[in-house]
Amino acid sequence: MKDGHEVHVLVRPRDRMPPGLEGAKVHNYRGHGQEILNAVEKARPEVVYHLASLFLAEHKFEQISNLIESNLSFSTQLVEAMVENKCLNLVTAGTAWQNFNGKKGTAANLYAATKEAFEVILRYYADAHGLKAVVLKLNDTYGPADPRRKLLAILREAALKKESLGLSPGEQKIDLLHVNDVINAFKVAGARVAKNVAGVEEFYLRSDRTLNIKELVEVFNKASGKTINARWGDRQYRPREVMMPWQEGEVLPGWKPEISLETGIHEYANEESNA
Amino acid sequence: MKDGHEVHVLVRPRDRMPPGLEGAKVHNYRGHGQEILNAVEKARPEVVYHLASLFLAEHKFEQISNLIESNLSFSTQLVEAMVENKCLNLVTAGTAWQNFNGKKGTAANLYAATKEAFEVILRYYADAHGLKAVVLKLNDTYGPADPRRKLLAILREAALKKESLGLSPGEQKIDLLHVNDVINAFKVAGARVAKNVAGVEEFYLRSDRTLNIKELVEVFNKASGKTINARWGDRQYRPREVMMPWQEGEVLPGWKPEISLETGIHEYANEESNA
Repeated sequence: MKDGHEVHVLVRPRDRMPPGLEGAKVHNYRGHGQEILNAVEKARPEVVYHLASLFLAEHKFEQISNLIESNLSFSTQLVEAMVENKCLNLVTAGTAWQNFNGKKGTAANLYAATKEAFEVILRYYADAHGLKAVVLKLNDTYGPADPRRKLLAILREAALKKESLGLSPGEQKIDLLHVNDVINAFKVAGARVAKNVAGVEEFYLRSDRTLNIKELVEVFNKASGKTINARWGDRQYRPREVMMPWQEGEVLPGWKPEISLETGIHEYANEESNA
Repeated sequence: MKDGHEVHVLVRPRDRMPPGLEGAKVHNYRGHGQEILNAVEKARPEVVYHLASLFLAEHKFEQISNLIESNLSFSTQLVEAMVENKCLNLVTAGTAWQNFNGKKGTAANLYAATKEAFEVILRYYADAHGLKAVVLKLNDTYGPADPRRKLLAILREAALKKESLGLSPGEQKIDLLHVNDVINAFKVAGARVAKNVAGVEEFYLRSDRTLNIKELVEVFNKASGKTINARWGDRQYRPREVMMPWQEGEVLPGWKPEISLETGIHEYANEESNA
């Protein structure tokens, strides 16, 4: 919106509106496909940024239908609505976890498998209906106003409460990107897909700095001026824990991350809690 | 059942029970995931033959959620129920249409894309939970008691009523297998997956005799002793009509078709109509 674009958002009425989107045109989605069709038909977007997703690190049987409804059924209906309205430019988010343990296309978890499966659907729409898509594969992300209870939030809370914290052995490496760097990547991808003639392109967003959880806690301590009292090995690794983020695959051309982990964590650790 | 196996079937109450399955143990599916879990837990099958599918040659927007529910959500819940019960042997059906116009993995239609997407899910379960699966990719099939309104059924009806029949230009080639040959392939695949140690294997079922629709009508006339009065070119080809069936990819080892088109069509054309 700051760049002068007219922005339409398709959201569930119960969703928290992301900060900065006040003034966007809101289309409500209550679970009816027709609402997706109507929103695309009214907005006629030059670029669709499809960011809706159900993330589950581990799934239970009874969550499968919701996972597939969110990540495949909604997503496919959105793309169908796009091609029916001749809106052919899509930017969407995948995950580096679509490639587990060095095996490209073999997902770390069912969530990542639904993301990989959606790319099959995208390739059909590209071939059959001229859809153009850029899929950005993300690793971990963080930043201000993040409502998710991710590791950095837990570290911040433990530091604030001065409580000790049970953690895994901490040897798994992660690759963290600041949300502002991620937003820039989506802008670059949007400009690319609007100009580009290719079908489905996939690019990775990486910080080019992986560090393990033990190293991350050291960075957190130094950048925040606080001290985490960690009980290493108190928790087990998750089944199919990703020990090393996927480092292969082309990074989005024309983009690089600009916010260092030290700067980002300093800001994050001292943010007023938004809980 | 003739081979001495205990057979359990999971069916919707409204489904027609396939002939020959009287005496099988019936588990009803009314759309609740728990019913899938219960059926697998009670049956504890050595091999699961997953044949449920929603086929749509062309889809409408409002059919997408059903397509994905049948071919991805139900299917994923079935596989989850299998691994939760340590039943790890699956035989299922894909389609040669998962490869359109010489492009492997680019589907001819959205139905075929859901089949290709399901293989992504299968690879996750194979890697994460030791699932073993054989996916048999079929072309066209025919045979007695076929309730589908496919080309051979339309030819038979036109011959019976002595009516002329509007058809496409008829240059698209098809590869037809008799249902008994297909059944034999599923038996071979079931024996293979029960012994086999590999993850997801894919094989093709082919007749090794492709013929175009014009040639097929000649075979029909000769084998049936009837004469189709065809108006060639009266109908248009379907969008993304498959003009040449996919001929690549390994055929299921230990299997070959045994019923010639002439024999099968002679029998089919003279079958008492089961409409």
